[in-house]
Amino acid sequence: MKATIYDVAKEAGVSIATVSNAINGKGKVSRKRREQILEIMERLQYQPSVIASALMGKQTYTVGMLIPDISNPFFAEIARAVEDRAHQEGYSVIICSTDNRDERVERYLTLLQQKSVDGIIIGTGIEDLDILRRLQANGVPLAMIAREAPALSVDTVVTDDETGGRLAAEHLVSLGHRRLAVLAESRKVSSSRERIRGFREGLSAAGIALEEESIAVCEYKVEDGKRRALELLALPPEERPTGIFCCNDLLAIGALQAAKEKGIPVPEGLSIVGFDDTILASVTDPPLTTVAQPMEEMGRLAFDRLAACLQRRDSERQRVVLKPELKARRSTAPAPQ
Amino acid sequence: MKATIYDVAKEAGVSIATVSNAINGKGKVSRKRREQILEIMERLQYQPSVIASALMGKQTYTVGMLIPDISNPFFAEIARAVEDRAHQEGYSVIICSTDNRDERVERYLTLLQQKSVDGIIIGTGIEDLDILRRLQANGVPLAMIAREAPALSVDTVVTDDETGGRLAAEHLVSLGHRRLAVLAESRKVSSSRERIRGFREGLSAAGIALEEESIAVCEYKVEDGKRRALELLALPPEERPTGIFCCNDLLAIGALQAAKEKGIPVPEGLSIVGFDDTILASVTDPPLTTVAQPMEEMGRLAFDRLAACLQRRDSERQRVVLKPELKARRSTAPAPQ
Repeated sequence: MKATIYDVAKEAGVSIATVSNAINGKGKVSRKRREQILEIMERLQYQPSVIASALMGKQTYTVGMLIPDISNPFFAEIARAVEDRAHQEGYSVIICSTDNRDERVERYLTLLQQKSVDGIIIGTGIEDLDILRRLQANGVPLAMIAREAPALSVDTVVTDDETGGRLAAEHLVSLGHRRLAVLAESRKVSSSRERIRGFREGLSAAGIALEEESIAVCEYKVEDGKRRALELLALPPEERPTGIFCCNDLLAIGALQAAKEKGIPVPEGLSIVGFDDTILASVTDPPLTTVAQPMEEMGRLAFDRLAACLQRRDSERQRVVLKPELKARRSTAPAPQ
Repeated sequence: MKATIYDVAKEAGVSIATVSNAINGKGKVSRKRREQILEIMERLQYQPSVIASALMGKQTYTVGMLIPDISNPFFAEIARAVEDRAHQEGYSVIICSTDNRDERVERYLTLLQQKSVDGIIIGTGIEDLDILRRLQANGVPLAMIAREAPALSVDTVVTDDETGGRLAAEHLVSLGHRRLAVLAESRKVSSSRERIRGFREGLSAAGIALEEESIAVCEYKVEDGKRRALELLALPPEERPTGIFCCNDLLAIGALQAAKEKGIPVPEGLSIVGFDDTILASVTDPPLTTVAQPMEEMGRLAFDRLAACLQRRDSERQRVVLKPELKARRSTAPAPQ
């Protein structure tokens, strides 16, 4: 059995508050009493724990991170970057996969507060902003990553999603595509809305309209992307899209699989553009043209914003916007005649 | 400022131990005193935290999980399964990516103990078993996943790696391959040793020897697999391997990229077998033949073993061995004549 602060207090015949003061050199503890307590701590091999410090109102050196799904390579790569930076600074990270479902978000946030985490990085889509407002009211430092909540004053690290969508549109337009469709993530997710907006604007600048029925909203799984892409590709050849912009690489893989199932060659019969540039994009058949996000930098900066927030609670909130980049690989080609 | 147990104790004019007893219905607290304390708790909106419970010597409902790298899809899928099961049971998970480096392992384990985690799932290769022995001596419940430490009495969930290696060998032998090579993970990792052993036995049963110089040990990154595969493929065509068994899917992707760079068609000129069956295996060009591990089941069972360990500290240690399965896709074909 490890000694606790209670054992030390009992042995010294003082309160645990006095032991705490002796450890931290605070309060009115006589030098003699302090030395006596430290000697008892040594004898009992008592190590003040992070937990004890937390109860004393200090930091737990733990942060929570809410993301849709750690098994999505985009979030796994972001999480690794956050973890590495956190670890450098002496923090550890509790990963919470929400599947973008509000009830999972709420349960996890309650849990993280019970654990007195020092702060929370939010990378999940949250429809009900009151959830985040309550956290802020409770004094929980927050940072958003890859998601925005413009109605809140909160540190945010995002890729310029609108520009990303526009880059995808410009690439497809430059290849002569005019019948285009979108595989979108949930509209709950701000990044999805922004990517579609940018894509629509890019088309619009070339005089091409994007019909609402050409936007298929998916769950964020490959199977779901495939299912919705099969619907888009069920149209007769002269009506179906010749290019599909997918709001993440997983959906783009679903689109690749749908095209294969339909016998439509990619890129000759159908061009597909992804988003994220995860490890998946470089190993697909054919490799994916995709809009790259700087994942490592995003994770690092998000932790740094949270850490800044922990140190100066009243500081200015910053919104860091990173540049996306179109990586042309082999899933796009000139539109079929 | 949230009320703490100290505020409640001060207001009630009792010690925090008495407040704790009142909350938990333990010790000698009169009914009247108890009601008075609960009323004060309600008035001050004091919620007993997990942290406070931990200090009282109870559980933190947090477990640690050491893995080589959360951005490796195999571990991301395992971590998601652990997280889901843990969450069902009211636990959360701190993810620690070790890169299989002992100094990172040690730092993380110290950190997890300072945080008083209830137990630790180990999925990383650890050479120095004294590290784990010290944890057990400190009373930290452990469960191993995808790794073994036969010298220790510890709950373990693994795939039958030896059988997995043998399945790969039998598949390649049945296709007529006789010049074979291996891209291996670090020999520190028990699963890598077992897979090679099974592969060697499978070949040996067909009268084929696996030379030591045909086993290339890699870091677990795609780039490293590619680099080592380029070395293997640098031999003249009549000497170079016609089949490569890769100890995970990432290395197999490296081998695919190396073959492409060398202009060797897969599978016509070179067959490649992976291991894991992550999402990567089904999206490569061509899709990977690979030995599938039941990742979701492994994660779930590992948490359950740890939970059993938490509940009955003296229980028997179990070793759960799950069956691998060869999934033949398009990266393997009859050996070139």
